[in-house]
Amino acid sequence: MPEFLTLLTPQEARQRMLEALSPHVRLSSETIPTREAVGRVSAQEVRAPHPLPMFHRATVDGYAVRAEDTFGASESLPAYFRVVGEIPMGKQTTLALAAMEAALIHTGGMLPSNANAVVMIEQTQRIADGEIEVYRAVSAWENTIRLGEEVKEGEIVLPLHKRIRAVEVGGLLALGITQVEVVRKPKVGIVSSGDEVIPPEQTIQIGQVRDVNTYTLSALVRQCSGEAIPYGILPDQEEALRQALSDLKPRCDMILITAGSSVSARDYTARVIQQMGAPGVLAHGINTRPGKPTIFAVCDGVPILGLPGNPMSAYVIALHFVKPILFLLQGLPWNPITPRIEATLTINLNSQAGREDWLPVRLIQTEQGLQAEPVFGKSNMILALSRADGLICIAADATGLAAGEQVFVEPID
Amino acid sequence: MPEFLTLLTPQEARQRMLEALSPHVRLSSETIPTREAVGRVSAQEVRAPHPLPMFHRATVDGYAVRAEDTFGASESLPAYFRVVGEIPMGKQTTLALAAMEAALIHTGGMLPSNANAVVMIEQTQRIADGEIEVYRAVSAWENTIRLGEEVKEGEIVLPLHKRIRAVEVGGLLALGITQVEVVRKPKVGIVSSGDEVIPPEQTIQIGQVRDVNTYTLSALVRQCSGEAIPYGILPDQEEALRQALSDLKPRCDMILITAGSSVSARDYTARVIQQMGAPGVLAHGINTRPGKPTIFAVCDGVPILGLPGNPMSAYVIALHFVKPILFLLQGLPWNPITPRIEATLTINLNSQAGREDWLPVRLIQTEQGLQAEPVFGKSNMILALSRADGLICIAADATGLAAGEQVFVEPID
Repeated sequence: MPEFLTLLTPQEARQRMLEALSPHVRLSSETIPTREAVGRVSAQEVRAPHPLPMFHRATVDGYAVRAEDTFGASESLPAYFRVVGEIPMGKQTTLALAAMEAALIHTGGMLPSNANAVVMIEQTQRIADGEIEVYRAVSAWENTIRLGEEVKEGEIVLPLHKRIRAVEVGGLLALGITQVEVVRKPKVGIVSSGDEVIPPEQTIQIGQVRDVNTYTLSALVRQCSGEAIPYGILPDQEEALRQALSDLKPRCDMILITAGSSVSARDYTARVIQQMGAPGVLAHGINTRPGKPTIFAVCDGVPILGLPGNPMSAYVIALHFVKPILFLLQGLPWNPITPRIEATLTINLNSQAGREDWLPVRLIQTEQGLQAEPVFGKSNMILALSRADGLICIAADATGLAAGEQVFVEPID
Repeated sequence: MPEFLTLLTPQEARQRMLEALSPHVRLSSETIPTREAVGRVSAQEVRAPHPLPMFHRATVDGYAVRAEDTFGASESLPAYFRVVGEIPMGKQTTLALAAMEAALIHTGGMLPSNANAVVMIEQTQRIADGEIEVYRAVSAWENTIRLGEEVKEGEIVLPLHKRIRAVEVGGLLALGITQVEVVRKPKVGIVSSGDEVIPPEQTIQIGQVRDVNTYTLSALVRQCSGEAIPYGILPDQEEALRQALSDLKPRCDMILITAGSSVSARDYTARVIQQMGAPGVLAHGINTRPGKPTIFAVCDGVPILGLPGNPMSAYVIALHFVKPILFLLQGLPWNPITPRIEATLTINLNSQAGREDWLPVRLIQTEQGLQAEPVFGKSNMILALSRADGLICIAADATGLAAGEQVFVEPID
């Protein structure tokens, strides 16, 4: 499998990968406490076990009445009501109203039988002998929320395969649903390789570099609700990589390899991946910068990516390929609508036609608006990314971007 | 302290709050493993303990040479070099090049002494007797990254009060910085109140509602790298609230109360907060929907917010007020540049002039582009928020928005 025979566009590579993967995605699930479910994906449709609210509720402080008894009431011609009681909070009321009767009620209180509206306290006046004057007519169900108005019994409150946010947790708990079935976190094996690579805590010798990819990729996997399984650092040996992938494949939903960066290491990485199962390597080399030597494979349903060894390149490629695959593995759309930041480019940028470029930029708030300033220096360094707020893309069909152009910045979180 | 005498704009209320708070913000810190620091804020400026790279490195596979020896080399007139060795990966080399000497080198390898460039392997040909032909001249330092080119010794690699992302973790670990001093997570006490409110796991009786705010607010606090301290549910009793606040204030950096929703509960909530310390209540009532009855206070340097009891209102207000305060408490700018989503509004919306409205919308991908459709039904329900992708704002100086207008959607995460 000689490399770079044909460079695919990133769109083609992603498409091949997702298509080869889709038939194999089997989402197993687990039940967890609802209050810990933020960021997870529902594995079951959830329906309301009862209506909400469970009773007609007042939404203001005032007097529960029969709306029809207030018709015609005004400042100059108030309606007179007899106050027959006060609704206790948090309790079922047994009160029932007859004509021209009212009950004192607080926001959230339960309407008595026959009541179908609440007059705001500001529009009443207490007079002698438990009587009130009402200065304004209310329409039926005014200042109330009716039984089942928020949700009816049996209505879907959490669709299948929806990412759970704080507001979904709130909706479920409002209905007493304290456990929720979610898609199991995809397990992602992470392999670093290179004879020169050492763990960050080890004393470094001249000639060596510290492993960075294991940690940046683990962080990204966790941000996408995956579980990172760091395998450690391998020497540049084909057999060591074969052993690592054979160990990881049965217990992982995805494997990321940051390959040794030499041509020979890239060659044997593709060869070893190819042996891990069908269909094997789908693309080797994409027309992007950074990330050209990326390897895309699916082996017996497990996606395997050979990422560049350079930490900056590995991270940018992971943002654009690992993230969508993790979404797919959890049953989410792989390309959700994502927010972005519009800014004005500060300088001219050149790029090679046919190649998609991703460049780190810093955002600067100026009186003329938000500006995107490319991070200077050799951009293939992890410290360049940490000086950046986001990435801008120069499309394959462009040969650059001009100073003053509006660009969309993909934030780096 | 009668409520709503003067409704402030949300901007005024936030400004008062942040100004009263700023002089009191004292950020204590803790040291944690760098690899667990994503989302935290640096409490110290970090400088590079050594340059990066620590040696001149090759960025391609090829031959290390003295650039001047390649001058004039071309396909038709190659330069001839004697290969004096191969650079081992991950080791310091003792090789030194003389004129017209080359050393085989791999990406990431250390340049031998006197070498100042690398010729790509593709631009060379091996001939007999350990000699190579070089078909292209290289300029000084071509295909290399020089010692200190990524970062110099002593250069700042992590500024003070910067939010740490995966890429910062990578940059620190590349330098062997495995521990980092970060701002301690702000502790946020959360109090729910209301005689009708019960914990979600408890069997519900007609007339009661389940506590939702404790969990949606806890989730939001955690998303902002705060530590949520749920206090539980209080009855609608002034003395119970006074006791809770007195308990929480010495051990919290912020307190959130979701007040009972009746007028009397709101009144005593403001009164109790006022007694907790100077300057006390700064604003009671803001001209927004939802969220009008919000109470803003700073008591002896501790921000205290009285949020509406309605879970939807409480969450929307927390997004716009609790988040900026948590940023401030961690030394971050309270109003960072945030990404947003542009979409076309599907229907006309009316609003009251002078009031800022926040409305939940669903995003719909259509052939005409992205559309923002307001979530129908009474919008003050938590289930309306869970059906929405984000919020749109109708500014105070507008009386509505027209169908077809471009709107910016603030995503709900």
